[in-house]
Amino acid sequence: MTDAPMTAQAASTTTAGDILSSHLTAQAGAFLRALPLAVGEVGARPGAVAVPSAGTADLLRAVRRVGGLLHTFGATFEQGWAQESRTELRWLLNLLALEPGYVRRSARLLGALDSLSGSEPNGPGMLAGHAGAPKARALLDRQLTLARTRAHTTVLQELRSARLHALADRMTLLVGEAPLLDTAQGRAATVLLPQAAAAFTALAAGAQQLPLHRAATPYGGDGLRRLGAVPAPAVGQDVPPARGAVDADAALAADDAPWHRVRILVKRARYALEVCGGPAAELDELDGVLGRHQEAADAAVTAATAARTPRITPATAYVLGVVHADQRLEVEAARYAFGRRWPELPPGLDTWLEIPPAEGWGQTPAPRTA
Amino acid sequence: MTDAPMTAQAASTTTAGDILSSHLTAQAGAFLRALPLAVGEVGARPGAVAVPSAGTADLLRAVRRVGGLLHTFGATFEQGWAQESRTELRWLLNLLALEPGYVRRSARLLGALDSLSGSEPNGPGMLAGHAGAPKARALLDRQLTLARTRAHTTVLQELRSARLHALADRMTLLVGEAPLLDTAQGRAATVLLPQAAAAFTALAAGAQQLPLHRAATPYGGDGLRRLGAVPAPAVGQDVPPARGAVDADAALAADDAPWHRVRILVKRARYALEVCGGPAAELDELDGVLGRHQEAADAAVTAATAARTPRITPATAYVLGVVHADQRLEVEAARYAFGRRWPELPPGLDTWLEIPPAEGWGQTPAPRTA
Repeated sequence: MTDAPMTAQAASTTTAGDILSSHLTAQAGAFLRALPLAVGEVGARPGAVAVPSAGTADLLRAVRRVGGLLHTFGATFEQGWAQESRTELRWLLNLLALEPGYVRRSARLLGALDSLSGSEPNGPGMLAGHAGAPKARALLDRQLTLARTRAHTTVLQELRSARLHALADRMTLLVGEAPLLDTAQGRAATVLLPQAAAAFTALAAGAQQLPLHRAATPYGGDGLRRLGAVPAPAVGQDVPPARGAVDADAALAADDAPWHRVRILVKRARYALEVCGGPAAELDELDGVLGRHQEAADAAVTAATAARTPRITPATAYVLGVVHADQRLEVEAARYAFGRRWPELPPGLDTWLEIPPAEGWGQTPAPRTA
Repeated sequence: MTDAPMTAQAASTTTAGDILSSHLTAQAGAFLRALPLAVGEVGARPGAVAVPSAGTADLLRAVRRVGGLLHTFGATFEQGWAQESRTELRWLLNLLALEPGYVRRSARLLGALDSLSGSEPNGPGMLAGHAGAPKARALLDRQLTLARTRAHTTVLQELRSARLHALADRMTLLVGEAPLLDTAQGRAATVLLPQAAAAFTALAAGAQQLPLHRAATPYGGDGLRRLGAVPAPAVGQDVPPARGAVDADAALAADDAPWHRVRILVKRARYALEVCGGPAAELDELDGVLGRHQEAADAAVTAATAARTPRITPATAYVLGVVHADQRLEVEAARYAFGRRWPELPPGLDTWLEIPPAEGWGQTPAPRTA
C-alpha cells in the first residue's frame, strides 16, 4: 500500500493497477476481518451506543473506502462489476449506519432539549422549567427508541442474508484479484491523477451549486426563514398537481439536498486523496461540518414529525417547535461554518492534481468578515 | 443652540449655563409645539401605525433629550426639581411609546410568522404550508390588537390628565428659565465635559457587565440555550422559596436586563454628545442594534405568552414555539452585532472628552473573525 505522495518519480516506477490493487487488497482484507466482529457486535449489543463498536466501525471504514475507490477510479475497472459492487456496498453502508444513526439522533435531540430546558440557576435555557419539556423528551425518546429497535431487528436479519454472503464473496475475490482493465497498466500518475482530479472538479461543481453567498453572513436565516427554491417537478413526472405553493417537508428536503450531495463529494475526494497518498485533514474538517449539517437536518425532521403525533398537549407541541427551530439553527450554523472553510483545501492540491485553475481551485476563500 | 464642537476656544467664551439653557429652551419649545399635535394624532388615528406620527415623534424626541440632559448634567441643576422632572418625562415617554410599541411588535411577529410559513416555491420557510400557521397568526394578531386597543384607551385618558398639564407647565418654565445652580456659571468645557465623560464611563462599565465573550462567536446559542446566571434574590427580599431551579420567564428577563440597561446608557451618552456638539453616528448604530435586541426579546415574550393561551391546538402551539425560538435567535444575532461594533465610538472621543485611558476607551474592537 502506497502511503507516500505520488510524486512523478515514484509514479514512474508504479502502474495504476499496482496502487489500486494494493488499496483494494488492504481494504477488502479489513472488510473480511471486521465482518464477523461486526455481526457479533450487532447481535450482542442492545444498540444503545452512539458510536459504532470497533468491528462495525472498521467495517464501515472499509466499505466507504472500497466504494469510493470504485467510484472515482471506475474507468480502470470492469464497468458492470464495479457498478454492482458499489450498489451492494451502499446497501451495507446504509444498513450498518441505521442503528448508530438513531442513537446519535436521540443523543442530539435529547441533549438539545436538556440544554434548552435546563433550569440550573447559573446557565438556564429558554425553556427552563417549561411543563412541556419532560413530555416532549419522553415522546422523542419513545419514538427514537422504537425506530432504533426496528432498525436493530432489520440489521440482524440482513446480516444473516444471502445478500451479505454474496458481498463477502465479492470482497474475498478482491484480495489480490481486482478485475482491472488494460488501462490500469499505465503509469500511476497518468491514469490515476486525472481521475482523482475529476473527483475534486465534481466537488467544486457541487459546492458552486450551494447558496454560499446566503450563508456568508451569520444569522441570515438560511436554515429557518429563507430556504432555497423548490425545483419544479419535471414534465411528465407523476406528482400531485402543483398549487403554486409547497409544504415544509418538501421545502426543507429540497433546501438540504445539495448540501448532503456535497458531503458525498467531499468524502469521495477524500478517499481519492488517500489512494494518491495526499493529505486529507482539510477534507476531514469539511466532512465533519457537513456531517453536523446532515445530523441536524435529520434531527429537525424527527422533531417536526414528533409534533404531528396525535393527542399530544399544546405544551409538548410548543417545546417540539422550539427544538425544531433549534436544530434548523444548527443547520444554518453548519452552513456558515462550511462557507468560511470553503475552498480551503490541502495546500498545493491544485498543482499536485494538475487541475486547471479555471475549475475554481486557488480561489481565495470567502472573506472572513460578514 | 451650540452645534459646533465645544473646542477649548469656543468654550472659553461660553458658560455651561449658556449651553444648557440654549438646549433646554430649544427642546422645551419643541415639546410645547409638538404636544397639541400629538394629542390630536392619538385622538384621531386608529393606532395602526408602526412609526409614531409626526407630532408624537417630535414630542418623543424632545422628551428623551430633556430627560437625558437633566440626567447627565444633573449636578448643574436644582436636585429636587431635576429629579421630579425626569420622573414625569419618563412617565410620558412610557405612555407615548406604548401604542407604537404594540404596533411594531405586531408587525415584527406577524412578519416573522409570514416569513417562516411562506410557501412561495422560490423562497419558502421552515413552516411552509403548516396547518398551525394561520391559527397562530390569528391568535397573535388578536392578542396584540387587544393590547394595543387597551393602550390606546389609556393614552387617550392620560393625555387629558392634570399630570400632563403640570408637565407642560414645567416645560413652559424651562424656556429661558432653567433652574440652574451657581456651578453653571463656570466655563462650559470645565463644567460639562466631565459630566459628559461620566456618561461614557457609565456606558463602558455597563458594557463590561455584558457577556460579550459569549456573543463573540456566531451561533453560540447565547439567546436560546445558554442564558446568563439568574441572580439570587437579595436576603430578606419577599420572593417565593428558591428550589434550586428557575423558570424560563425569570431566566430570560435576567439574561436580557443588562442589555436593556446598556441601551439606556447608549442613549444618555448620545444626548450628552449632542449637548457638547459631538458626532453621534456610531452611538446611533449601537442604539439601533440594542433596539432590535429589545424588540426581539419583547416579541419572544409575547410568543411564549400566547402559547400559554388555554385551548389552543397543538399545531398552533408548535408554530408559536418556532416563532419564540426565531425571536430569541434575533436576540442572539443582535448581541453578536453589538459585540462586533463595541467599542467602536466616535473618533477622537477619548481625548475630546478627557476620559482616562484606564476606563477602557481606545481599546481595539473585538476581532472580527469568530
